[in-house]
This record gives sequence, structure tokens and C-alpha cells, in this order.
Amino acid sequence: MINPSEAAVPTEHTDPERRRVKSVVVVNTGDGKGKSTAAFGMVVRGVARGWSVGLVQFLKSGKWQVGEEKVCRDRLGVDWFAIGEGFTWDSTDLTQDEAVAQAAWAHARALIEAGEHRLVVLDEITYPMTWGWIDTDEVVATIVGRPADVNVVCTGRDAPEALVTIADTVTEMRKVKHVYDTGVLAMKGIDY
Amino acid sequence: MINPSEAAVPTEHTDPERRRVKSVVVVNTGDGKGKSTAAFGMVVRGVARGWSVGLVQFLKSGKWQVGEEKVCRDRLGVDWFAIGEGFTWDSTDLTQDEAVAQAAWAHARALIEAGEHRLVVLDEITYPMTWGWIDTDEVVATIVGRPADVNVVCTGRDAPEALVTIADTVTEMRKVKHVYDTGVLAMKGIDY
Repeated sequence: MINPSEAAVPTEHTDPERRRVKSVVVVNTGDGKGKSTAAFGMVVRGVARGWSVGLVQFLKSGKWQVGEEKVCRDRLGVDWFAIGEGFTWDSTDLTQDEAVAQAAWAHARALIEAGEHRLVVLDEITYPMTWGWIDTDEVVATIVGRPADVNVVCTGRDAPEALVTIADTVTEMRKVKHVYDTGVLAMKGIDY
Repeated sequence: MINPSEAAVPTEHTDPERRRVKSVVVVNTGDGKGKSTAAFGMVVRGVARGWSVGLVQFLKSGKWQVGEEKVCRDRLGVDWFAIGEGFTWDSTDLTQDEAVAQAAWAHARALIEAGEHRLVVLDEITYPMTWGWIDTDEVVATIVGRPADVNVVCTGRDAPEALVTIADTVTEMRKVKHVYDTGVLAMKGIDY
């Protein structure tokens, strides 16, 4: 039985132009579901391969990912940097939000440059990039200049062009239909 | 700080037309990456919520998911039905491939109907549906008639129209660009 997706995947040198790379940059973008969820799946895959995996959250998603965070930390041994770590929240202070995103980026940059993780997930990093809270050029330069075997996964809508350009694999999660459209409420365990 | 995706998610009754559902049907389709990977992420999310989670593989993907299977089984307690379970493989026997897919479906159907799992993932089920190895009408009827709190996630390219019709949420993973296109080989831990 041939797996159609597997059939399309080259794993051996059949073409002299083909080359092995030590790591890749993956971007999950678009307005549909599954951007962060697929990144979580890559975390599982990385852990399955015995990799050290780090994840940095760039948005405060409240309770959204508390469960995932706990499972990833406790059962999968992921180094999880929660947004706002080291800050006391004052949700009325927008400048603090910006500082929080910048602190997350400082942590992410150090994580990437240290090269101790084979996979670093930058979850929802596109938003602070779009809002100008963190510098897109610096993010791109850091990713391009990363240690050779550090894979980077970025998620979020409206991925900046500069990020798409340097990425190896970009997937747009496109909404075909969504249960909310029919007036259904978000459901714990599926949506958050 | 507002999470733009969170902002769009209704979690309270603001509209009398809105209703709670006990479970949803999710389809991840399209030619891009992330269909199964997002399903793995939903497994993590389900486990994080304390759910009992089952996963049935519908394609033989060789070593692809051995790592994920092990992590999901051993660390996350997922009931994982590997494709070909109970069969001795003879890859030259196509009728066996069909029988294997039918056995996977029989297991999946029993799993859904038993109602003991809050989440059942039917990974790559669209392929045997498309090939006529398992009956699309029966799959759709089983999903529609499932116990009220069983969520079902189906993955694979070219989701049959009948499945899309009964699904609550359908996401097309669309390839924007892929590292293979530039002649790079598949990489362990990222692609398989």
C-alpha cells in the first residue's frame, strides 16, 4: 500500500541536485485552524525522535494552552516559555504587553543561538512582528544565522513576507468551514 | 493583549441563536503539511483535558509514525491502533491492503460506537474512502450517529464531499512552498 504523501517525499539521493540540510524553517500561517496545533504535533514528533524541544509563546492566551503546557512540560519534557514569564500582569498597560513580547523574543533568541534544542517553536510570533513590537529584520536574521541543526517553527496569521522568504516550508491553513460560523460555541478540548 | 484568534472565538452565549454542542467533527484536508500533525496536536490537547483518546491509522506509513506512536502510547496514554494490526504483511498482496484498511475501519467504528473515548482520530481515512476500500456512506453514517460526546477528527487529502458536508470544521492545509521543491531531502524528526 502506498501512502500518497509518503510517495512524494524523497528520502534518498536520486537526483544529484538534491541535498541534505541539517535543519529547516517551517511557517504555519493562514486564517484556518491548526497552525499552533500542527506545531504541537511537531513537538510530539521531535520528542519522539529524542530531540530537546523548546517552545516560546508570543501571545497571552490565558487558559487556552495551560493544558498543553502542562502535558508538554511534565510528560514530554519540553522547555516551555510561557508568555509573561517574570511579569506581573496589568492588562490595562499596553506598553507592558509590548515589553512582554520583547522579553519573549529575547528568550527565544537566546534559545535559538544557544543551539541546545533541535527544535524551537515560536508560537504566534507573527502578531508582535506585524504590530511592530519586535523587529522583523532581527527575527529573520536570527533565524537565518541559527546554529546549523536548530529547526525553527513559526506560527500565526499574516506571516511577514521576509519570514516567508527565508522559510523552507510554508503552509497556509485555510478555513473551508468552521463550526463557529453556524453559531456554535467554542468547545473545551477541541478549540482551547 | 488580545490574541486575534482568541478574539474571534465565542465562548459565551452572546447570541440567542448560539448553541453548545457536545462534540464536533473536524476534517484536515488539502495538499499541504500539517494534516496529521495538527491531529497529533489535538491528541495532546485532548489528553491535556483529561480525555480518553483513540487513534486509528488507515495507511501503512512504515517507520513514519513509530516515534509518535510510542510517545502517544507510552507518555500520553493514547489508544493507538496501528495499521495492519493482526496482519502479517505481504506488500505484494493488494487484496490484503484492502482487508487491512477494512479491519482498521471495523476497529474505528467499534471505537466510535462504544463511546468510551472523547476523541477519536481517523488518520488518513480519506485515502481508503477515495479508493473504495471502505464505504464512504457507512463512515459518514457512523460519524453522524456517534454518541453525543465523541469528537471525531479525520485527516487526508481529497476529503470526500459527503464527509465535508457533515463536518463542523474543515481546514484545507494548502502548500505555499515546501523545502522538497528546492531539492532538499526529507528530514527525520520534521517530515517523518
